[in-house]
Amino acid sequence: MKKTGTTSNRPQSRDLSILVSNDDGIDAPGLFALVKELKKIGTVTVVAPDKQQSAVGHAITMNYPLRVKNFQKNGKFFGFAVEGTPADAVKLAVRALLKRKPDILVSGINHGANTAISVIYSGTVSAAREGAILGIPSIAVSLTTYGPPDFRYAAKLARKLVKLVAKNQLPQGTLLNVNVPPIPEKEIRGVLVTSQGKAIWADIYDARRDPANKEYFWLTGNLEEADTSHDADQWAVTHKYVSVSPIQYDLTDYPTMGVLKTWGVEKLK
Amino acid sequence: MKKTGTTSNRPQSRDLSILVSNDDGIDAPGLFALVKELKKIGTVTVVAPDKQQSAVGHAITMNYPLRVKNFQKNGKFFGFAVEGTPADAVKLAVRALLKRKPDILVSGINHGANTAISVIYSGTVSAAREGAILGIPSIAVSLTTYGPPDFRYAAKLARKLVKLVAKNQLPQGTLLNVNVPPIPEKEIRGVLVTSQGKAIWADIYDARRDPANKEYFWLTGNLEEADTSHDADQWAVTHKYVSVSPIQYDLTDYPTMGVLKTWGVEKLK
Repeated sequence: MKKTGTTSNRPQSRDLSILVSNDDGIDAPGLFALVKELKKIGTVTVVAPDKQQSAVGHAITMNYPLRVKNFQKNGKFFGFAVEGTPADAVKLAVRALLKRKPDILVSGINHGANTAISVIYSGTVSAAREGAILGIPSIAVSLTTYGPPDFRYAAKLARKLVKLVAKNQLPQGTLLNVNVPPIPEKEIRGVLVTSQGKAIWADIYDARRDPANKEYFWLTGNLEEADTSHDADQWAVTHKYVSVSPIQYDLTDYPTMGVLKTWGVEKLK
Repeated sequence: MKKTGTTSNRPQSRDLSILVSNDDGIDAPGLFALVKELKKIGTVTVVAPDKQQSAVGHAITMNYPLRVKNFQKNGKFFGFAVEGTPADAVKLAVRALLKRKPDILVSGINHGANTAISVIYSGTVSAAREGAILGIPSIAVSLTTYGPPDFRYAAKLARKLVKLVAKNQLPQGTLLNVNVPPIPEKEIRGVLVTSQGKAIWADIYDARRDPANKEYFWLTGNLEEADTSHDADQWAVTHKYVSVSPIQYDLTDYPTMGVLKTWGVEKLK
């Protein structure tokens, strides 16, 4: 496969170059809706997993080869389908497929919320995080419903955010995690800058028997309703606000560094 | 499978109960070395992936069933082998297999470094992070070599750290990421409390042809040597210190919340 340019219908060289990926797979309606809006403001290249990859976290493929296929839509080339994870798709796009680093990356639109602890498990967020690691201003966008989705408003909002991010400058190492409530545009109360909520999953492992009477477990459960703080992502979306959280990949808990020294950690050997 | 107690040879009820997991798989020498040391100070239960799961990040299995097998070592029950990821193993242990929440979790000993950006991709760290999410004081331990490993000193140090963590109290949401240089104990200069280093991977995708002349990519590359800061994990291990980093799963970049408001993010709609 040769290094490629971009796939937009507006190939002016001064365009904003936008890399789009996701975790629901290259044939997901949320990705189609996003691409349609972003083509209004830039040159879009799609590099996405070839199939659904939810909850894969920031997995990358090192022990197996990665293959890439051209994905067609309505008889025309639409994008590159990577037989790997969301982080694989972004890494491969930037390191091998694209001629130059894109100006911005948008991951999504995910079908389902990525608020609170779900940020940790999310493939959508990981694609955007991989973008941030590679020095690209990056945004993850999710529609907070598991029901039938209407991605149109979320896609429009993503377009507006891309313009804001292109005009300003995100700090190196920080990306935006955006969650949009699944309600008509006129019912949206506004946009809130939020923090990652504290709620975790109340996991339930459903213990079942297969036809051979062997036991297996199936994970289910719900996000706990732990967040009453008005600056939390989860609070915002349940109260009809779009949530925009700045998140980072430096995981250091700096205040606790001093605490560990008082424990005598540095006196161990 | 019934809910189970623990697998130690020291079943006193006042013992420290220690859950051990990893990402190299339940038959990994690094896990055996760790279990051997931790049995000196507590009752150990092993719940680990049935096979190698490196670089899976914080992936969890939701769309497929999970199976669990008893794993034997030297003809005796050793632990539970989960056909899933490190985070699956820990979630399933705490939510379904164990009668009560363990006092502490140790993940490792990983064969290979988990410093700097590798923290994001690491299955070893994700197992410990899942423990922290579930409210268990948790430690990830890695030996920073890809060569032939000697896990004995790292295992001893893990045991000492477990005692310190059991005596003190980690903040909710914070875990310890420990990296041990692969040198004889007498050459270790000491233990440093560190932050996550800034180095990222200089990824290279090796483009190859399969026997049918179809192209595929294989990921390789090295960690950039970006960290000269003496408080970074990567600096510590390359200078013969054990590195102990407190890391957290609240990814919010709090200072940037205010910055986004000045951009007018909350004026979008």
